[in-house]
Amino acid sequence: MIIIADNLHVINPVIAQAVETLDSQPISAMVQRCAQAGAHAIDINCGPLKRSPERRMAFLVETVQSVADLPVMLDTTNPAAMAAGLKAARHRPIINGFSLEPIKLEHILPLAQTHASDIVGYLLDAHSRVPITEDEMMAVAVTLFETYCRAGLDPARLIIDPVITPLTWDNGLRHNQAVLSLIRHLPDLLGTHVRTMAGLSNLASGPMPLPRKIALEQAFLPMLAAAGLDMVLTNVLHEPTMETARNCGILLSEQVFA
Amino acid sequence: MIIIADNLHVINPVIAQAVETLDSQPISAMVQRCAQAGAHAIDINCGPLKRSPERRMAFLVETVQSVADLPVMLDTTNPAAMAAGLKAARHRPIINGFSLEPIKLEHILPLAQTHASDIVGYLLDAHSRVPITEDEMMAVAVTLFETYCRAGLDPARLIIDPVITPLTWDNGLRHNQAVLSLIRHLPDLLGTHVRTMAGLSNLASGPMPLPRKIALEQAFLPMLAAAGLDMVLTNVLHEPTMETARNCGILLSEQVFA
Repeated sequence: MIIIADNLHVINPVIAQAVETLDSQPISAMVQRCAQAGAHAIDINCGPLKRSPERRMAFLVETVQSVADLPVMLDTTNPAAMAAGLKAARHRPIINGFSLEPIKLEHILPLAQTHASDIVGYLLDAHSRVPITEDEMMAVAVTLFETYCRAGLDPARLIIDPVITPLTWDNGLRHNQAVLSLIRHLPDLLGTHVRTMAGLSNLASGPMPLPRKIALEQAFLPMLAAAGLDMVLTNVLHEPTMETARNCGILLSEQVFA
Repeated sequence: MIIIADNLHVINPVIAQAVETLDSQPISAMVQRCAQAGAHAIDINCGPLKRSPERRMAFLVETVQSVADLPVMLDTTNPAAMAAGLKAARHRPIINGFSLEPIKLEHILPLAQTHASDIVGYLLDAHSRVPITEDEMMAVAVTLFETYCRAGLDPARLIIDPVITPLTWDNGLRHNQAVLSLIRHLPDLLGTHVRTMAGLSNLASGPMPLPRKIALEQAFLPMLAAAGLDMVLTNVLHEPTMETARNCGILLSEQVFA
């Protein structure tokens, strides 16, 4: 399973300030910690970048690449920032992401075509709402996949994210159980293997003691892995979660245990 | 998921000595720790009990029941000890267990009929060998289930154990992956829901640091739980494993997260 760090996020005030002032030091420090923790890629979640989006995104990508030889995932709703990030990226970057929301289909999805990039497609309806039941999720998955293919894009470059929701939401448990089932049934549903990703930090978001968050992540991640999840977007500084991720890789591998 | 303690085991020299000398104190102390750790039932693994099997098993069952109001699972190959345990048990006990081995079919399985007990059936062939591939396991499961039903026993009282094997075995990884798949497919295979149990301590048995054992248990247990495992036989004094078991219960429950 590929582990993508979600730690470089403007929800962190230190990172937000560094993006604002184009200060590479706090960003480099965070990326170094993520790389040491075992991240295979770095998600750059910089928000919409309303001022100088191209300059700020290029700065971010270059700063990440200056400290870690890892692919980046570009996590912004701003198409200008996205395009600038795609230009600046050394490894094949991942666009994060599109959904059935018209503004995303119009402005983000075409960038995957222009830049021949991998792109994350979120299982959200046209109003960015989360489908709750597995049937609703399957319907969204089929529509998203058909929309993607009709745009002339390669299914091998699509990564479907079924959207883990917070357990504290009314339908959180039920939805996340449907996520497991959807991941398992997706190859049959689409008639081909499409890679999947999930944002694990969503599971226990909100006010909850850190050890409780980590323990819930540790219990849910192996369920996702056994269902066939290809990539997890997660807080790589949660060391027990990372150990669980590594052990999932071992337990589900084809190799001999050593 | 029902959690059964595997801690009361004659492989522990303190327990072996207590069984030998009919000393209730070490047994009571262990059972108390297991109950406090959250065990739902206690497996009494007393070995074949070659001398005074009836007396020793009755002593064990009564000692367990004197400190914890929990069901017992009777884990011996000695039919006389098994019968004595079944008589002494207050709650509905579980016979642990039988397989396709002729001696078990002849001497253990009939006790489930006489005492109207639940019984564990191990997916081992007639020579007590572990099948490796899922196809082999499915064939054994069907034969075991048919043999059980032909004996006039109620499928609702059967618990199938697909036998987790040590990861250090040559085919350990592959076999345990097949265990996950078998648990998931068993209802379709047998045409009815038959409860399943697995012995988690087998996974990381052998020389390995304790934190490593526990981390592997924590990664594999949620996979088993999501596959549909009903009961786990495990070391309940591994506190992180127990926390994972509780969180699996929450994540897979029908309830609202609180």
